[in-house]
Amino acid sequence: MTDAELPEPVTLAELQLAARNHGLPLEALRYAVTPVGLHYVLTHYDIPAVDVGEWRLGVRGEVERSLSFSLDELRDLPAAEVVATMECAGNGRARLAPRPVSQPWLLEAVGTARWRGVPLPTALKRAGLGDRARQVLFTGLDRGLEGGVAQCYERALPIGEALREEVLLAYEMNGSPLPPQHGFPLRLVVPGWYGMTSVKWLSSVTVLDHPFSGYQHERAYRFRLAEDEEGTPLSRMQPRALMVPPGVPDFVTRERIVDEAPLRLEGRAWSGWAPVVSVEVSADGGEAWTRADLEADVGSPWAWRSWSFEWAPTPGRYLVCCRAVDAAGNGQPVGQVWNLGGYANNAVQRVVVSVV
Amino acid sequence: MTDAELPEPVTLAELQLAARNHGLPLEALRYAVTPVGLHYVLTHYDIPAVDVGEWRLGVRGEVERSLSFSLDELRDLPAAEVVATMECAGNGRARLAPRPVSQPWLLEAVGTARWRGVPLPTALKRAGLGDRARQVLFTGLDRGLEGGVAQCYERALPIGEALREEVLLAYEMNGSPLPPQHGFPLRLVVPGWYGMTSVKWLSSVTVLDHPFSGYQHERAYRFRLAEDEEGTPLSRMQPRALMVPPGVPDFVTRERIVDEAPLRLEGRAWSGWAPVVSVEVSADGGEAWTRADLEADVGSPWAWRSWSFEWAPTPGRYLVCCRAVDAAGNGQPVGQVWNLGGYANNAVQRVVVSVV
Repeated sequence: MTDAELPEPVTLAELQLAARNHGLPLEALRYAVTPVGLHYVLTHYDIPAVDVGEWRLGVRGEVERSLSFSLDELRDLPAAEVVATMECAGNGRARLAPRPVSQPWLLEAVGTARWRGVPLPTALKRAGLGDRARQVLFTGLDRGLEGGVAQCYERALPIGEALREEVLLAYEMNGSPLPPQHGFPLRLVVPGWYGMTSVKWLSSVTVLDHPFSGYQHERAYRFRLAEDEEGTPLSRMQPRALMVPPGVPDFVTRERIVDEAPLRLEGRAWSGWAPVVSVEVSADGGEAWTRADLEADVGSPWAWRSWSFEWAPTPGRYLVCCRAVDAAGNGQPVGQVWNLGGYANNAVQRVVVSVV
Repeated sequence: MTDAELPEPVTLAELQLAARNHGLPLEALRYAVTPVGLHYVLTHYDIPAVDVGEWRLGVRGEVERSLSFSLDELRDLPAAEVVATMECAGNGRARLAPRPVSQPWLLEAVGTARWRGVPLPTALKRAGLGDRARQVLFTGLDRGLEGGVAQCYERALPIGEALREEVLLAYEMNGSPLPPQHGFPLRLVVPGWYGMTSVKWLSSVTVLDHPFSGYQHERAYRFRLAEDEEGTPLSRMQPRALMVPPGVPDFVTRERIVDEAPLRLEGRAWSGWAPVVSVEVSADGGEAWTRADLEADVGSPWAWRSWSFEWAPTPGRYLVCCRAVDAAGNGQPVGQVWNLGGYANNAVQRVVVSVV
């Protein structure tokens, strides 16, 4: 009735990543803003130890004047808050085969936080954008070897995206300084985009007059079907609806046991492309779908919306699914759609539920 | 040169657990007290949603008077703080074969927190221990099916252990209310014991006149070699030393690249039986061992001690290991020692390091 085994078993290398990184236990979808420690975390290399007394952020490149900020100096600039849902581009990867050796997410690589910091345009305008500005490169302090390339983690944004007011140089998460694993003392937050863009442990912001061609753009985070294909870079999050698994779990299988029906199914849905306009629920594995109620959102266009569905099942075994559609018409496939990097797999969630 | 594959691949059921629960990324051994979100978490079932306005702790059973406390009432009692290292009894399970379907920890299921709460003896004395008191049962609000048995998670302590002053009914972790995943609003903390004993989301404390025989005692958390063996219950943590992996990682293999030698290896070591009195390091996979420096501890007999080792390797590939011995003479084996439940496997850590 369901996907009881993976098409390809998990290797030691994948387990090592799964033991370090972690997802949102799906019952934590109940929180509009995800508590620290429940928000997903993915770090490519190690969490760096940063001495905040020594740390500075450099702003340089195609600017009128290079700048350097201490954390206190950034805190003295006008601040903004954005509640944003962030999802890993690799969410859903574990059910693909073959798949690259990387973090084997099932569906839990998501979270919503209240980020506070300096709008990126504020910092860029202080430096004075040069006429040739085309992209902005963000360099983290986290360092390692990937695909044979020694690197600090870095990613770039097109200048138009970098000038969005809601893009933050964030120093707070949920009202507290960033935890080490979320980028202390400063990270980028790009609402609407997959998480790989929101570079953590920022050390510099460099305005470029050309497209950046580093590892995390040219080799990783591209949607492609073959190695020799140029492919398209990942950017915004595909729509996805997830439900709080109803009832209680079996420890081993995580199948659900529901002993009180009717019940209310609840969850969250998001898309980086446009607002979610519809969530549907299926209790038969994706054959028949019924519209769920979309609730008021958490007050931010960049955060997930909550949904609910009154369900009155008779005793039996069900494969319960949910799916979202956004205002741009993007939806979710019922089955897995393969790609080389295992990215942006937004196939619908399937939860086995026994109503007793 | 090392354990490049698991003896048995990870299944979907194990991955589901690994995606929910999470360990301490080993570079976070650098923190004497583990920041929230980096401390290991294991939950058998779901994290319950607790309405603290409705919640109460019951104290009952073999007592002179049954009591019931709100969180505010507990906060009004005399409080104590304990810095304690907590490790999952299943830490090290993933390298065993065959192994039960459970959380496939490598080595990262540990953390140290500053817990604050009411000493358990204070609460028990308020209720008045009956003469027949033999064990104390702790019942959590987390509910599920395990081994075919519907249950709330619950574990008991012998009365002598329950009366230790450092056993806490804890409502704070690192100076803040417990995060949901660590047992909000109240959990038990039993310093020195494996984590299964420190029941989260406490709803009741029941003094028993007999040994408790629930699932988590009779079926789980026993050290045994065959199903039909009675075995011995898990209790205190075996000694273990872990190191902060030196240098920087390769993303996929997590092997380490060190480009600056000599260097200082650092880590932490603990035992639930007695203070750690010695840590040794090997750079050749456990053939030759040299004593490391044990540093001042973090001011608590229940917390790990830090250690360091000045290492001056020539370029080459090394299999670096560390091991601890406690004052009771307990040590760590170099190889895996199998048991049915995959518990208490304190085989030494092995880190592949390329010095370039």
